[in-house]
Amino acid sequence: MTTVALIEYEDASPEVRAVYDDIRATRKTDFINNFWKALAVNPAQLARTWYAAKEVMAPGALDPLVKEFIYIAVSVANGCSYCIHSHTAAAKAKGMTEAQYGELLAVIGMAHSTNGLVTTMQVPVDDAFQVK
Amino acid sequence: MTTVALIEYEDASPEVRAVYDDIRATRKTDFINNFWKALAVNPAQLARTWYAAKEVMAPGALDPLVKEFIYIAVSVANGCSYCIHSHTAAAKAKGMTEAQYGELLAVIGMAHSTNGLVTTMQVPVDDAFQVK
Amino acid sequence: MTTVALIEYEDASPEVRAVYDDIRATRKTDFINNFWKALAVNPAQLARTWYAAKEVMAPGALDPLVKEFIYIAVSVANGCSYCIHSHTAAAKAKGMTEAQYGELLAVIGMAHSTNGLVTTMQVPVDDAFQVK
Amino acid sequence: MTTVALIEYEDASPEVRAVYDDIRATRKTDFINNFWKALAVNPAQLARTWYAAKEVMAPGALDPLVKEFIYIAVSVANGCSYCIHSHTAAAKAKGMTEAQYGELLAVIGMAHSTNGLVTTMQVPVDDAFQVK
Amino acid sequence: MTTVALIEYEDASPEVRAVYDDIRATRKTDFINNFWKALAVNPAQLARTWYAAKEVMAPGALDPLVKEFIYIAVSVANGCSYCIHSHTAAAKAKGMTEAQYGELLAVIGMAHSTNGLVTTMQVPVDDAFQVK
Amino acid sequence: MTTVALIEYEDASPEVRAVYDDIRATRKTDFINNFWKALAVNPAQLARTWYAAKEVMAPGALDPLVKEFIYIAVSVANGCSYCIHSHTAAAKAKGMTEAQYGELLAVIGMAHSTNGLVTTMQVPVDDAFQVK
Repeated sequence: MTTVALIEYEDASPEVRAVYDDIRATRKTDFINNFWKALAVNPAQLARTWYAAKEVMAPGALDPLVKEFIYIAVSVANGCSYCIHSHTAAAKAKGMTEAQYGELLAVIGMAHSTNGLVTTMQVPVDDAFQVK
Repeated sequence: MTTVALIEYEDASPEVRAVYDDIRATRKTDFINNFWKALAVNPAQLARTWYAAKEVMAPGALDPLVKEFIYIAVSVANGCSYCIHSHTAAAKAKGMTEAQYGELLAVIGMAHSTNGLVTTMQVPVDDAFQVK
Repeated sequence: MTTVALIEYEDASPEVRAVYDDIRATRKTDFINNFWKALAVNPAQLARTWYAAKEVMAPGALDPLVKEFIYIAVSVANGCSYCIHSHTAAAKAKGMTEAQYGELLAVIGMAHSTNGLVTTMQVPVDDAFQVK
Repeated sequence: MTTVALIEYEDASPEVRAVYDDIRATRKTDFINNFWKALAVNPAQLARTWYAAKEVMAPGALDPLVKEFIYIAVSVANGCSYCIHSHTAAAKAKGMTEAQYGELLAVIGMAHSTNGLVTTMQVPVDDAFQVK
Repeated sequence: MTTVALIEYEDASPEVRAVYDDIRATRKTDFINNFWKALAVNPAQLARTWYAAKEVMAPGALDPLVKEFIYIAVSVANGCSYCIHSHTAAAKAKGMTEAQYGELLAVIGMAHSTNGLVTTMQVPVDDAFQVK
Repeated sequence: MTTVALIEYEDASPEVRAVYDDIRATRKTDFINNFWKALAVNPAQLARTWYAAKEVMAPGALDPLVKEFIYIAVSVANGCSYCIHSHTAAAKAKGMTEAQYGELLAVIGMAHSTNGLVTTMQVPVDDAFQVK
């Protein structure tokens, strides 16, 4: 189904293995999901993406669970099925409750709707919303 | 610039005024932003959208600021400039710090990138991500 | 603002003028909108696009006004501001009433919302919806 | 495949059953499609969405079949496979002919193409298209 | 899975067969991929699309392989799985190396990321980038 | 118009200045475009993005001009006006001819059209296009 062959740990170059090792160590699990096995087609891109993701998704001014909500929202609007599945699973693993999921869903549905309405009518930005 | 004329309070029908009144009372301000003035072209749609938005964006299992982050993320992926401006302003009004904004930005950038990578390679969903 | 220079009738090659002439004759007006003046950067593409559009948008099994509704709907979802403006103007010229516009708006808003909800939850297609 | 469990009538809460009952009564069939069974994860959202959809998709200034065409056009541009299948099935049930489908297809293809062309060249909106 | 029945050569009208024959002659293979078999639902659209594609994708100022890269990039951003598969296969058939694919992937990932960042911040276009 | 204040060199922190210096040195010009001045709101993101872009857009298996074509194609499909302007300017600076631009335009228009057609009909991927 992929356009590239998935590269398993056993078949990976040392450069790719180093990234896989860091994924395993960071996540404290042997499981490496298909995204990384596919991205290994370009080892430099694999490394760049993993180390950036590790930094961006770490706890900071925003809670890691909140970051997953944002990730899911983007992935839905971009129609990336794999991304929706993997980040919904990640959100569950980070403690997302069913009530939170229900509200995430409602906000995403509302945002899509008003995005469509605003765009249809080509509403001009209010002065009050401009950065001073 | 809009495709419809904006309807001011003074020119609005009683049905539209009732919604405008509720917007003002809920937000504790006389300011009504252009979106609602444009949507008044269809009073039933105006009422439906406002009362749904009021319910969906209220505090619940998710914090109202978190809901704004999700709203911004969807609006970016849908390319809705007005929505990005209005919800970024709303997030600031609800206390978003510059550090939070910086991380919101980083997560949105990361999500778009991996959405593009995953979609290019058509990565299949791992069994581990499926709902049981 | 365009990335190409707009080509006016006076400055156009015979190949481009032939298309402009047909646009004018078909629409019974001297007005040529910016899209065609920009597309003239590639005369073969200009001709291909105009003659296809003329055929596709003509009366047929679907009413020309209905075709404009469909065009607006696609343009909104693709975020093409120019296209929304030009086809909303075309719909008005073809007799769209305010009540029709209000319902068009409502359907577009509803479709965006359920698109977002369905995609978030990755709902599988019911067997009943499959083509036999 | 969904990120939530589908809720069957037998397992639904009274609040959810009330919506299912209204879907069945309105559509005069026992069949409830997967979208609603998934959306039942958030009963308030289920009710809000169903009652809004019922109102928006009802006969009015636009014919119900025309509303389905608009719905399909939005769903295509948003890449919502489920929505395309369910609304194409709905359009067929409402009498869409093969000739109408062929023209719907042609308009959608044309709109996508010119959306892409306009956006590439960043064509400015003609004054003639602005709302007075 | 399609919303239309695929039309095989044996069951095609003379009008459709003429296009199928030209596809086979142009590509020097008997294989006709599903896209054309589906599009045959509207024979005029089939002919228009095939002859335009043949012209647009032919060698010219851009190399045919470069045209495939552009096609893949658009298809990814539009989330068209079929298009990604068919044009990735076409790129391979035209000699795309694994190193080229790896870089195509990296550029697509980078473009998506900066698209998201720019849109979130609503960055104004620099004067230096305007067409003179 | 941006949602953040643009940070000029004079007002930048040493961390941000270091990136600005590298942009200037790499591009052999003092000009720093608005994207980087906006992204400086998150210095870590600025650095990550610049150094990745520098690496990804450098000459390699793909020509830098070809990389700009791919970048433009993604930016169009994502509707990022700023990105379209900046990368079209970059392509011109790298020697894009008018004939090349005309063909780029034609391929983008064709790809959008067939993306829309394929998605409307939900065409299944041919076995021949699957990776072995």
